[in-house]
Amino acid sequence: MADHEIERDEALSLPEFIRATIEPFDPLRIVGRLVRRGTKAPGSPPGTLVHTGPRRVEAVTVQAIRYGPDGFEVERWDRIPEPLPVPPPGEGVLWMNVEGLHDVELLKAVAAGVRIHPLAIEDVANVGQRPKLEEYSDHLFIVAHMLRIQEAQVHILDEQVSMVVGPGYLISFQEGPGDVFGPVRRRIESGKGQIRSRSSGYLAYALLDALVDSLFVILEQLGEHVETMELQVVEDPTKQTMRSLHHLKRELLVLRRSVWPLRELASSFQRVERDWIEPTVTVYIRDLHDHCYQLIDTVEILREISSGLRDLYLSNLSQRTNEVMKVLTVIASIFIPLTFVAGVYGMNFEHMPELAIPWAYPAVLLLMGLIAGGMLAMFRVRRWI
Amino acid sequence: MADHEIERDEALSLPEFIRATIEPFDPLRIVGRLVRRGTKAPGSPPGTLVHTGPRRVEAVTVQAIRYGPDGFEVERWDRIPEPLPVPPPGEGVLWMNVEGLHDVELLKAVAAGVRIHPLAIEDVANVGQRPKLEEYSDHLFIVAHMLRIQEAQVHILDEQVSMVVGPGYLISFQEGPGDVFGPVRRRIESGKGQIRSRSSGYLAYALLDALVDSLFVILEQLGEHVETMELQVVEDPTKQTMRSLHHLKRELLVLRRSVWPLRELASSFQRVERDWIEPTVTVYIRDLHDHCYQLIDTVEILREISSGLRDLYLSNLSQRTNEVMKVLTVIASIFIPLTFVAGVYGMNFEHMPELAIPWAYPAVLLLMGLIAGGMLAMFRVRRWI
Amino acid sequence: MADHEIERDEALSLPEFIRATIEPFDPLRIVGRLVRRGTKAPGSPPGTLVHTGPRRVEAVTVQAIRYGPDGFEVERWDRIPEPLPVPPPGEGVLWMNVEGLHDVELLKAVAAGVRIHPLAIEDVANVGQRPKLEEYSDHLFIVAHMLRIQEAQVHILDEQVSMVVGPGYLISFQEGPGDVFGPVRRRIESGKGQIRSRSSGYLAYALLDALVDSLFVILEQLGEHVETMELQVVEDPTKQTMRSLHHLKRELLVLRRSVWPLRELASSFQRVERDWIEPTVTVYIRDLHDHCYQLIDTVEILREISSGLRDLYLSNLSQRTNEVMKVLTVIASIFIPLTFVAGVYGMNFEHMPELAIPWAYPAVLLLMGLIAGGMLAMFRVRRWI
Amino acid sequence: MADHEIERDEALSLPEFIRATIEPFDPLRIVGRLVRRGTKAPGSPPGTLVHTGPRRVEAVTVQAIRYGPDGFEVERWDRIPEPLPVPPPGEGVLWMNVEGLHDVELLKAVAAGVRIHPLAIEDVANVGQRPKLEEYSDHLFIVAHMLRIQEAQVHILDEQVSMVVGPGYLISFQEGPGDVFGPVRRRIESGKGQIRSRSSGYLAYALLDALVDSLFVILEQLGEHVETMELQVVEDPTKQTMRSLHHLKRELLVLRRSVWPLRELASSFQRVERDWIEPTVTVYIRDLHDHCYQLIDTVEILREISSGLRDLYLSNLSQRTNEVMKVLTVIASIFIPLTFVAGVYGMNFEHMPELAIPWAYPAVLLLMGLIAGGMLAMFRVRRWI
Amino acid sequence: MADHEIERDEALSLPEFIRATIEPFDPLRIVGRLVRRGTKAPGSPPGTLVHTGPRRVEAVTVQAIRYGPDGFEVERWDRIPEPLPVPPPGEGVLWMNVEGLHDVELLKAVAAGVRIHPLAIEDVANVGQRPKLEEYSDHLFIVAHMLRIQEAQVHILDEQVSMVVGPGYLISFQEGPGDVFGPVRRRIESGKGQIRSRSSGYLAYALLDALVDSLFVILEQLGEHVETMELQVVEDPTKQTMRSLHHLKRELLVLRRSVWPLRELASSFQRVERDWIEPTVTVYIRDLHDHCYQLIDTVEILREISSGLRDLYLSNLSQRTNEVMKVLTVIASIFIPLTFVAGVYGMNFEHMPELAIPWAYPAVLLLMGLIAGGMLAMFRVRRWI
Repeated sequence: MADHEIERDEALSLPEFIRATIEPFDPLRIVGRLVRRGTKAPGSPPGTLVHTGPRRVEAVTVQAIRYGPDGFEVERWDRIPEPLPVPPPGEGVLWMNVEGLHDVELLKAVAAGVRIHPLAIEDVANVGQRPKLEEYSDHLFIVAHMLRIQEAQVHILDEQVSMVVGPGYLISFQEGPGDVFGPVRRRIESGKGQIRSRSSGYLAYALLDALVDSLFVILEQLGEHVETMELQVVEDPTKQTMRSLHHLKRELLVLRRSVWPLRELASSFQRVERDWIEPTVTVYIRDLHDHCYQLIDTVEILREISSGLRDLYLSNLSQRTNEVMKVLTVIASIFIPLTFVAGVYGMNFEHMPELAIPWAYPAVLLLMGLIAGGMLAMFRVRRWI
Repeated sequence: MADHEIERDEALSLPEFIRATIEPFDPLRIVGRLVRRGTKAPGSPPGTLVHTGPRRVEAVTVQAIRYGPDGFEVERWDRIPEPLPVPPPGEGVLWMNVEGLHDVELLKAVAAGVRIHPLAIEDVANVGQRPKLEEYSDHLFIVAHMLRIQEAQVHILDEQVSMVVGPGYLISFQEGPGDVFGPVRRRIESGKGQIRSRSSGYLAYALLDALVDSLFVILEQLGEHVETMELQVVEDPTKQTMRSLHHLKRELLVLRRSVWPLRELASSFQRVERDWIEPTVTVYIRDLHDHCYQLIDTVEILREISSGLRDLYLSNLSQRTNEVMKVLTVIASIFIPLTFVAGVYGMNFEHMPELAIPWAYPAVLLLMGLIAGGMLAMFRVRRWI
Repeated sequence: MADHEIERDEALSLPEFIRATIEPFDPLRIVGRLVRRGTKAPGSPPGTLVHTGPRRVEAVTVQAIRYGPDGFEVERWDRIPEPLPVPPPGEGVLWMNVEGLHDVELLKAVAAGVRIHPLAIEDVANVGQRPKLEEYSDHLFIVAHMLRIQEAQVHILDEQVSMVVGPGYLISFQEGPGDVFGPVRRRIESGKGQIRSRSSGYLAYALLDALVDSLFVILEQLGEHVETMELQVVEDPTKQTMRSLHHLKRELLVLRRSVWPLRELASSFQRVERDWIEPTVTVYIRDLHDHCYQLIDTVEILREISSGLRDLYLSNLSQRTNEVMKVLTVIASIFIPLTFVAGVYGMNFEHMPELAIPWAYPAVLLLMGLIAGGMLAMFRVRRWI
Repeated sequence: MADHEIERDEALSLPEFIRATIEPFDPLRIVGRLVRRGTKAPGSPPGTLVHTGPRRVEAVTVQAIRYGPDGFEVERWDRIPEPLPVPPPGEGVLWMNVEGLHDVELLKAVAAGVRIHPLAIEDVANVGQRPKLEEYSDHLFIVAHMLRIQEAQVHILDEQVSMVVGPGYLISFQEGPGDVFGPVRRRIESGKGQIRSRSSGYLAYALLDALVDSLFVILEQLGEHVETMELQVVEDPTKQTMRSLHHLKRELLVLRRSVWPLRELASSFQRVERDWIEPTVTVYIRDLHDHCYQLIDTVEILREISSGLRDLYLSNLSQRTNEVMKVLTVIASIFIPLTFVAGVYGMNFEHMPELAIPWAYPAVLLLMGLIAGGMLAMFRVRRWI
Repeated sequence: MADHEIERDEALSLPEFIRATIEPFDPLRIVGRLVRRGTKAPGSPPGTLVHTGPRRVEAVTVQAIRYGPDGFEVERWDRIPEPLPVPPPGEGVLWMNVEGLHDVELLKAVAAGVRIHPLAIEDVANVGQRPKLEEYSDHLFIVAHMLRIQEAQVHILDEQVSMVVGPGYLISFQEGPGDVFGPVRRRIESGKGQIRSRSSGYLAYALLDALVDSLFVILEQLGEHVETMELQVVEDPTKQTMRSLHHLKRELLVLRRSVWPLRELASSFQRVERDWIEPTVTVYIRDLHDHCYQLIDTVEILREISSGLRDLYLSNLSQRTNEVMKVLTVIASIFIPLTFVAGVYGMNFEHMPELAIPWAYPAVLLLMGLIAGGMLAMFRVRRWI
């Protein structure tokens, strides 16, 4: 059997993992972020197949992996075979991974092959859907987001990953090449774990699990970024700091939008009852559910801390203004009265008897010293200096 | 069959879509916004038919579209025929679109034609209702808001759209001409999609879907506005900026009021069980429900970001005040002591031995230079300059 | 039949409605507002009849309206007849309206007449209850608040209205004369609508509906006040503005306390099943429920906007402080260095060669001009002037 | 029968009530407030009987009241009789009130007498429990807080009151002497109301009702305090004001902690079904439930208003800073330029032709006047003066 | 029987308890805090056994305690015996405590001994799980956090404690030596309480109860810290204060993350129905549930107070800035006009008639005094001085 397309490296370190599974993303994959572009051309009939995101790949490619307890087979298809070589029940799984969504004819052929509901295939093409799991009579339809962080600018990019899961097959749709499913491919290749002897439902779980794991990696990076920001706010806040905090808040909102619905997705998945999904998968999905909770907890903690940082920054700013004021006040309060005294004896009246007194000048200097000293003492008492 | 009243353009671009479906709105359609005018004259008996909004159209017009799997027919009625030409079960749908609500007699005639419940027809006339779906024994009653954004001032206008959906008929009521249902009319006209062979329940879904789609268009515009505001706050905040942010907040509240109840509406619609609505519609309504969630998510994100912008603006303001203070402090702290020194040697005491020393003047100038340098060094250390 | 006590004016305009139904309130009706006076003397046995509010009327009066499909009859009673003339089932309704609550003996007589539960009659007398609907075996017990706004100070006054609704009778208790039920009385008098042929449950609905309508009128006034405040904050904020905003916030809290529980009340009312309430009333109560939601939505929007106004005010204040600082900084920064230069040449050293140079004075003036110009240019660059 | 220990005064005014039921509290009763001291010595076995609060009374005393429809009997016990004289079903109630919790042997004897569950008796001794109602097979276990306010410092003290309610008996445990149950004792003594002919469940209701009533009294005092603070913030804010507001916030948190769980307690009580509690008690407990809601509403309103006061205070502070700045700016902006002019003509250049002109001095004075006037006009235009 | 490994001290005081049960923690136990390190290497198959935390102990040790109603036995195992000596039903419990998680082989042996589900044993090794209770067919799986506070820096460290509870056995897994279970061991040793005659479910309760008790100790320390901060904010706020408040907020977030899920854990535990857990345990778990509520209440109160402290700090800062401004304004406003007057009479015009008047000098001095007095009076009126 061929395995040339599946990476071999088994023991990836964490940074290697990040590079391996995330870097292949195309930098073009920046989508409209605050508001997702309309889920379809407004008012068009449901089931209209129009790809709404940017085109991220030249030619749409389809990778088909057929595996069973006894082996596996990898092919790359240019067109969809008819009928689809779905293994008979219990004898393995066909996993088709479609990369690129702008080839509407190909999508139609795939949809026809396993009778995907028109609304499901529409959501595949109209990227920007909310993560969700929908039950159709023939299959499950899952939408999730694959996130990627551009480290330099702490900029989160999201890509929609859709899956149609039916008896003996799983079709995954991605917007472009590069994904986080490498480890799952390696497990299929190596036969490690139980994945080869399991159903398509288990494969769906495994893919979602890999996806959730990749979100933890992103959260770790964001967590480090938050800690860096924390240091910056405390040690060396600049005019730029508040903008960075605002930017961080936005990214956390984007992240949250992708993460919160996952909990509901996992919860729906737990309640699914199909005869082509073995009941023992439920306990794995419960584990997934649990991880989603952990993701959400962490996102919320990061949000709370970043809003705390904003408060800290503003309080630092007030503190600094207060210190500037103190310096001004101390200097002005000491010298303005002294200048007044000097001004008095700079007047040109003809009759100013003090001017003639020999010790008047040193006396005035002494007086000035006393005034300055008194002021300084007052400020010391107020703990301004 | 006549189709003169249905627009022909099939492939509208997004901006064209906006123009086509939104611009026909009458600028007069600005209703009381913060608080909706009383749902009826206070204390009047339930079912009292009084139109409460502004009159937006001269003469009330009724457009009637009868369609079935085989064809369609468009008429414009001046008075309501008796009995209403509702097609027999399963043989098509009569869609009556009433534009203008101030002709009470006409509303009564419509209500009599299909036995609309008095409370439902009252809510049709008393615009300013919350979006909702109510089940009556004979029909469903749906209220939703059609929003429009006046781009120049980012001002959201809302118009109430009511629908009465029964077996074989759907009656929609609008406050004035111009709506977002153009694409649905075109689908009926062209026979594309499945709309002609579907029930009135499917038509209701199609209209709501078109409405929700138009809300996405508005959200996109608001999203762009928020991003413009973001730039303005960061690059060039003026006195006007905070007012714009407050205005934006208000508009988002208005939007939210129209959007939040839609989720409940869709959820109620999903639970409706009537023998004249085919069960396969449910999956479409679930899709609608999903889109409502997406709308709400986006509105909330815009709200969070706009409140973050407020914080950013205020912090910028503090920052600027801090800088103004620094300039004042630096200049005053340097020159006030120097002026004092000059003042001392401007005193007119007769006995000031320094005045006679030849090198005293340059020495004093040097002293002044040293004081200024020391001050500058201190400010440099504090990183104020 | 007598109708002398029922107002005749059928078509009241909105301001007339406000005057007609709200102005008769006694200005004395200001109750403890933040915390309602104890629901009863603390620790006294349940069912103790003590009126806890201010006495708002000299003599307690009872207006009794008996109506049925065929006619109606109005009487004013000084004492409660025994037994009460409750019409037999299905033959009409007796509506007793008690104005004033301090006549304990009369309350006891009323309670005895239709066997009101001691806890219910206690809550009638102990004003300051939360709006609620309680089911007792013989009757329903409803508490709601009738609000009034003192326009000059935007001060909301509340009065408790209690109703005991049983088969064939409804007894309403008010703290004093003047109410919002005029339109209901007129409908009974004129026989318009269906009220005369309906049960006491429908009457309860009609009264609650009139009450909810009157709350909309108050919300409109508050909404206008909020818009006035908005203008004031933007155009001409004064020291008083923030206090007004705080006051507004308090009034909205008072309003909210009366409005929020209404939703629950309407929801409980919808679930009531009694054989003396016709099932067709449910749809009207659902309508009421809907209006309560609308009320709550609006109150919350007003609250959000008024808190946005506070932010706007504070940001305006910071803005103004910033501007004051700029003026000070610009003027001080220009003249303090100049004064220093003048001071230098005002020193009295004997050896200051510049003083003798003929062109020194114009040169120094020129230098001063250059310094001032440089400063002005710097401030212009920073866009402070 | 003996009644010497029950107070006689039937008609207490509100202030008298406060004094009568609250002042006997021992000033020592200040417990750890933010965090309640550990519910037991950490890690000790469940059911360990250790009193964790301060010892508030020298000797533990037990007051036993036996009453029935026909009479009542009060005794003071030094030791617990064996067996306990619990009246047979339906023939009356034994109410034992234990004051002081440090006598572990006595608690054990009480627990043995009516077989109290070890966990319940542990919670009795380990004060600082959350208000709750727990059902055990033999009895109900109720924990609530009796609050007291030290008026001078607006300091809320709480004392735990536990009750064990079983068929024919109720045992209440207090930390020390002085309680709010005086009116209930008087009702038993006087035979007023229905208390003597009711079950122990009714007695539990009556005691909780008295307790809730006393919370209303405290809320009234806090409400008055809030209104005083409101006046202080508006009229005469000092440095101390913000601390008082923070203190108020803390006290409201303490209060809230005692009040919120009461709602759940009342709700659990409503669902209790025991054959030794007559069903007619339920309606009274519903009333209690309602009062708990009212308490919570009021606490939340006070919290909102006190946070509004904080905003008002801060805005006042900004306002005052703004005014201080204006005074400084006006004075400095007028006199600094004038001083500069004077400085120019104080220079000692030999060639200053103006100095010799006779009308130069008045001209300069005029110029100064014009500058000052111009400045004043500018400030007037800006509405700073 | 051997008891050498169980501490003997029965009556520990609270500080001793803290030292005894908390100090043995290794200082190395600081884990990634904001974001917990990935629950497993991303993408690896479920059930992969990799320890993700820091290695806190040289050699993994296993302490096995077998006890029953008649006695107990303590052993320290280097390797897991096969089969595990689990007592037969109802004849005692085997409690294995594993300290250290990096010995994967040992974990596998333990898992094999009692057939632990792969996902459960994976969560044991992958520390950083959310507290939870999961039901597997053979056993319960519980995860909780053991917290420790580094007093000097108020730094909370958390360690994951996992438990697998099955019929007749309980296996607890800790990351390193030192725990809070000492009192439970002593109870087993001494035979006090009922623990020896109870099931493994009761032991699980006892351990969780000890853990929750230790959280109360930490909350007390945090509560004292909050009160210290309160004093610091009011008495002597420094630049450091705000950072400490931010740090406190972070620690409370960490604490909350460990505490909130406990409520759900206890609630799930209450619903567990297994024949090897006696039903009477439920009432103890309800008690545990109650304590979790109390923990959460307290954490939330601490959070609210610490956010109140932030407000107090910021308001103090504004107050101080305001005072600095007042000092500057008062001094500058008094002396700047005086200096101007002195400057006027320091001008060198030849024709200044005043200069020759003998009483001009004292007159000017008087004028200056009047100006200063007037200014002071104005500031006194404004209550600035």
